[in-house]
Amino acid sequence: MFNGKDTMKNTAVLLGKTIINPGGFTIWLTGLSGCGKSTIADALAEKLQFNGHRPQRLDGDVIRQHLCKELGFSKEDRDENIRRATFLAKLLTDSGVITITTFISPYRELREYARKTIGSFMEVYVKCPIEVCMQRDPKGLYQKAIAGEIKNFTGVSDPYEAPTQPDVLLESDKETVEECVAKIIGKLDELMGAPLQSIA
Amino acid sequence: MFNGKDTMKNTAVLLGKTIINPGGFTIWLTGLSGCGKSTIADALAEKLQFNGHRPQRLDGDVIRQHLCKELGFSKEDRDENIRRATFLAKLLTDSGVITITTFISPYRELREYARKTIGSFMEVYVKCPIEVCMQRDPKGLYQKAIAGEIKNFTGVSDPYEAPTQPDVLLESDKETVEECVAKIIGKLDELMGAPLQSIA
Repeated sequence: MFNGKDTMKNTAVLLGKTIINPGGFTIWLTGLSGCGKSTIADALAEKLQFNGHRPQRLDGDVIRQHLCKELGFSKEDRDENIRRATFLAKLLTDSGVITITTFISPYRELREYARKTIGSFMEVYVKCPIEVCMQRDPKGLYQKAIAGEIKNFTGVSDPYEAPTQPDVLLESDKETVEECVAKIIGKLDELMGAPLQSIA
Repeated sequence: MFNGKDTMKNTAVLLGKTIINPGGFTIWLTGLSGCGKSTIADALAEKLQFNGHRPQRLDGDVIRQHLCKELGFSKEDRDENIRRATFLAKLLTDSGVITITTFISPYRELREYARKTIGSFMEVYVKCPIEVCMQRDPKGLYQKAIAGEIKNFTGVSDPYEAPTQPDVLLESDKETVEECVAKIIGKLDELMGAPLQSIA
């Protein structure tokens, strides 16, 4: 038998006490819709899996569907969305998982919040001229945004605050997917102090 | 350069493709407020850490604070709360993490949903007579519920559907914390087919 009063123990503290696996890391891709975040993230995840890792992908649409159904695209709702995504990425990172996130995450302040909260974190800016993103328009969203069918659309009717000092800068209209992935893995090697490519 | 159309690739499918680590598992504790879920979960996490694992704790209050601020305690809101917790536990489990959850999770249907969704899953019923839980009342919640200050309180003004066939049955008014932890680890060994205690 035991005393139930012990259940008052603060679990948040216990979460904080979790042993950090040096292998845990969040790779945070930011950029306009259509800039290529998901394509690069998928290729990166495949490369890491091939090298013996077990990365996890967190995608904006999936997070919205499962955790943030009630949230829209106002600044307040976007911020709450990123706070929840950050909580998730931190849990995974603290558990030793290489976590690759693809959120437009247009606001600098919230990306800084994610960096500070998660700790083992790199910001990857997938830069691409909006004209190119509009031409790609993989989900037909720009067309709808320009027609006024979607409100608060980043780059059209909502701001995007570009990173001024990203850990990695990718230019998806000039570089191949393979080049982008190689740049991220090079930076990971540098930050984690272990050659990721050799863990085959 | 690459074609942005590729970004249409379904990330949910990619999530599904994640290699499942046989080490990933969700230990889902259910029971009334004050039954001892958190105490047992904390002791279990410590034991697993001592044995070289890196478990993660998901606690009801922490999840509500970070992911479900807007949700109350109606059946609908409780269900959505458990759906979000399930999404989180699945992500962690698929990433190879032993995940220990402590949610009252009063509805059988939603616990079954968690089991089916997560896959590597065991239900642990922390059974304790409500009179004992009320006497412990670690957070003073029963007192408030009886006074009518808290509505929809499980066991007082809301139902608790006890598991009929839990994977592990613990009786926290009769068994010590150590006995409870040993029973869970014994079941884990059985289900995972590897002696967890020996991974020191």
